[in-house]
Amino acid sequence: MTGNTEKIIKKYIEGVGRADADAKIRAREYDDALIKPPRSLGKLEDIAVKLAGITGHVKNRIGCKKILVFCADNGVTAEGVASAPVSVTASQAVNMTSGITGMSALAKNFGAEVVVVDVGVATEFPLTFDGKKAPIIDKKIRKGTGNIVCEPAMSMDECLCAILTGIEIAVGNDDGAEPGYIDLVGIGEMGIGNTTTSAAVLSAITGVCSDGLTGRGAGISDEAYDNKKKVINKALSLHGLTDAVDKYVDDFGAVTDILSKVGGLDIAAMCGAFIGAAYSGKGAVIDGYISAVAALLAVKLCPAVSDYLFPSHVSTEPGYMLAIKELGLRPYLDLNMGLGEGSGCVLAFGVIEGACAMMNDMATFEGGGIDDSYLEGIR
Amino acid sequence: MTGNTEKIIKKYIEGVGRADADAKIRAREYDDALIKPPRSLGKLEDIAVKLAGITGHVKNRIGCKKILVFCADNGVTAEGVASAPVSVTASQAVNMTSGITGMSALAKNFGAEVVVVDVGVATEFPLTFDGKKAPIIDKKIRKGTGNIVCEPAMSMDECLCAILTGIEIAVGNDDGAEPGYIDLVGIGEMGIGNTTTSAAVLSAITGVCSDGLTGRGAGISDEAYDNKKKVINKALSLHGLTDAVDKYVDDFGAVTDILSKVGGLDIAAMCGAFIGAAYSGKGAVIDGYISAVAALLAVKLCPAVSDYLFPSHVSTEPGYMLAIKELGLRPYLDLNMGLGEGSGCVLAFGVIEGACAMMNDMATFEGGGIDDSYLEGIR
Repeated sequence: MTGNTEKIIKKYIEGVGRADADAKIRAREYDDALIKPPRSLGKLEDIAVKLAGITGHVKNRIGCKKILVFCADNGVTAEGVASAPVSVTASQAVNMTSGITGMSALAKNFGAEVVVVDVGVATEFPLTFDGKKAPIIDKKIRKGTGNIVCEPAMSMDECLCAILTGIEIAVGNDDGAEPGYIDLVGIGEMGIGNTTTSAAVLSAITGVCSDGLTGRGAGISDEAYDNKKKVINKALSLHGLTDAVDKYVDDFGAVTDILSKVGGLDIAAMCGAFIGAAYSGKGAVIDGYISAVAALLAVKLCPAVSDYLFPSHVSTEPGYMLAIKELGLRPYLDLNMGLGEGSGCVLAFGVIEGACAMMNDMATFEGGGIDDSYLEGIR
Repeated sequence: MTGNTEKIIKKYIEGVGRADADAKIRAREYDDALIKPPRSLGKLEDIAVKLAGITGHVKNRIGCKKILVFCADNGVTAEGVASAPVSVTASQAVNMTSGITGMSALAKNFGAEVVVVDVGVATEFPLTFDGKKAPIIDKKIRKGTGNIVCEPAMSMDECLCAILTGIEIAVGNDDGAEPGYIDLVGIGEMGIGNTTTSAAVLSAITGVCSDGLTGRGAGISDEAYDNKKKVINKALSLHGLTDAVDKYVDDFGAVTDILSKVGGLDIAAMCGAFIGAAYSGKGAVIDGYISAVAALLAVKLCPAVSDYLFPSHVSTEPGYMLAIKELGLRPYLDLNMGLGEGSGCVLAFGVIEGACAMMNDMATFEGGGIDDSYLEGIR
C-alpha cells in the first residue's frame, strides 16, 4: 500500500513541468515595452513573467479562483499548546462552507470558490447555522494525529495518503483552464494546534532552532508560550529530528519522515496540494505560516513546484519569514494577519489579477497608435 | 484675491469633522465579537474601525471608487533631475484617460473611475491614440512652475489656487455616498520632476536632511542622482528652508510658504484633494512618495484629515517611509512599485473592500444562530 501510494505521488512529482523559459523572456520583453519606467510596477511585473512561465503565453487572464482548505486535528493539543478547544476545527470548517468565517467572507466578496476538505478532523461536524449538513469533502484519513511528544503524528502510510489526497484535490476533475486563462488555488488550513506542528517541521527541515520559529498562534499566555516551545523541542528530540537536516540525503525520505513524525495531516495534504496545483498548471498561492511550511515541503519533494508558487501576506507567526525566504519569495501584503484559513490568498488573488491587467491593458511604446516620441524619455 | 482664496480654504479646513469616536468603539466591539482569534485580521480590523469613524456606522460598503490624478510640470526639470522629457507629463495624462497607463489599466480592471486634472501642464496635450481630445479637466494655473534653484516655484496666490482646486475636485458635485456606503478617492499625480520637489518639501517640513529623502525617481544615472541631491540642497538654501521646521509656528503659513517656494502645482493640488476628500466624508487613499508628502502637508494644514487617510503601498522612493511614518500609517502592500499615477491606490481599494466584507459577512460568536460553545475557545 505504502509503496503503491509512493509510486503514484512520484508519478505526479515527475509530471510537474518546469516553467517555459522562453515565454518568460518574451513576457519580460513585452513588460519592458509597456509605457512606464522600467520595473516601476515591481512585483506586478515579476508576477506577469511568472504567469507566462506557467502558461507559455505572454498575456494571461485569471480563470477560476479557489481556496482549498485542509482541515485536521493535531494530537499535540493535549499538551496545552493552543488557546482553542479541538472542537473549533470542526465548527470552523462548517462555518467556512457557510461563508461566515474570515477567509470565506473575503472569498464571497472577491468571487473565489471555497473548497473545504476533511483530512483528519477529530470531532463530529456540527450542522450549519441554518441546520444543514455542511458540504465538506470527506477524505478523513484518521481522527486527528498522535501526540507528537509521545508518538509519531501518523504512520508513513497515513502521511503518504494525506499527500496524495492533497494532490488529487488540487488537480481536481476539471479539464483545466480555458485558453488564455490560468486558474489559481489558494492553499489554506483549519487545524487547532497546527502552528506547533509547523514549527516542529520547519525546524527539522531547515536545522534552525525551533524556539525562534514558534509563535503564539491564535493567542496564548506567556506561560503557555514557554510550554509550547518546550513541547516542540521535546517532540523533535523524541523523534531524533534536532539535527535532521544534516542526516538526510534523500528529500522524499526526509520530508515524509519529518511529516509523519512531527507534522500533521493538514500540512501533509497542503504539501500535496501545492504539487497537485503545479502538476495541473495552476498558480498556487501561499497563505501564512502553515501554508508556507507546506509549500517548502512541496518544493523539497519537487523543486519544479517553485515555478508555480505565489506568496500572499506576511504572517504574524515568527517562523513565516524563514519559510518564505527559503522559498525565495517576498510577500505582497503586510496586513498583520494571522488568521489562516487561506485568508491572505484571497487578497493576493487581486494583486495577481492586477499583474494581468497590466499586461493586457497597458499600451506599449511602439504599439497602440501612440507616437513614441512622447514616451521615449521614460523608457 | 489671495486673502479670499485663503479664507475659502480655511472654511473647508474648519469644516473637516473629526472621526466619530463612539462609532469607532462600537466597531471595535463588533469586530472583537467576530468568529476569529482577536486581531487575527490585523489591519483589516483597523481599516474597519477607521471607516466607522468616518461614516458613524459599524458596517460599511464601498461606494464610488475614483482615482484623482493631478498633472503639472516642474521648472526644476531644467536642472536635469528627471530621466524623462517634460512632454511626458502631457502625453501620459492623455494616456490615462484612455485606460492604457499602469494605474488606468488597474482602475479599469477593478472598477475605479479615473479623473485626470491639469493644474499646470507645460506642454500641449496630444490627441488620444484614436485621435480624440482627451477628457482632461482644465484647471491649469500656469504652464509649469518656476525652476526652484533660481526662483520660487510659484506665487502664494498660485499656490493657494492650486490647493483650492484640489479641494474642490475632491469634494466634487455629487450628493455624497448613499446611506451605508463610503466613497473612496485615491490621490495620484503625473508630473515629471516631482520626486525632486517632493524631497525638497519633505525636507523643509520635517527638518530631515534631503539627501536621504532623494531617490532615483523613474530611473537616473549615478551622476544625475548626485546632481539631483545637489539641486534640492541648492533650492532649499536659496529659499532659506534648510532649517524651516524650527522657524515656523503657524502651520498654514509654513505649509503654503514651503509649497510655493520649492513645491509644485501637483503637490499643492493633491494636498488640497486630501482636505476636500475629508471635508466631504470620503476615504482618502495615499499612493506613493509624492502622494504621501501631499497627505502630510494636508494633515499639517488640518489635523482632522488624518482620520480619513488610508495608506496603500511602500514606494521605492527612500523618502516615502519618513512621510508615512510621520502620518502614523503603515502601508498594506509591498510591491516594489514606484510608478505613481495613483497605481497603488487601486490595489489598496481591494484591501479596504476586504475590511468591509469582514464586518458585513462574518458571523459573530453570539449571532447568526451559531452555538457559541463551539467557538468560545478562540475568543
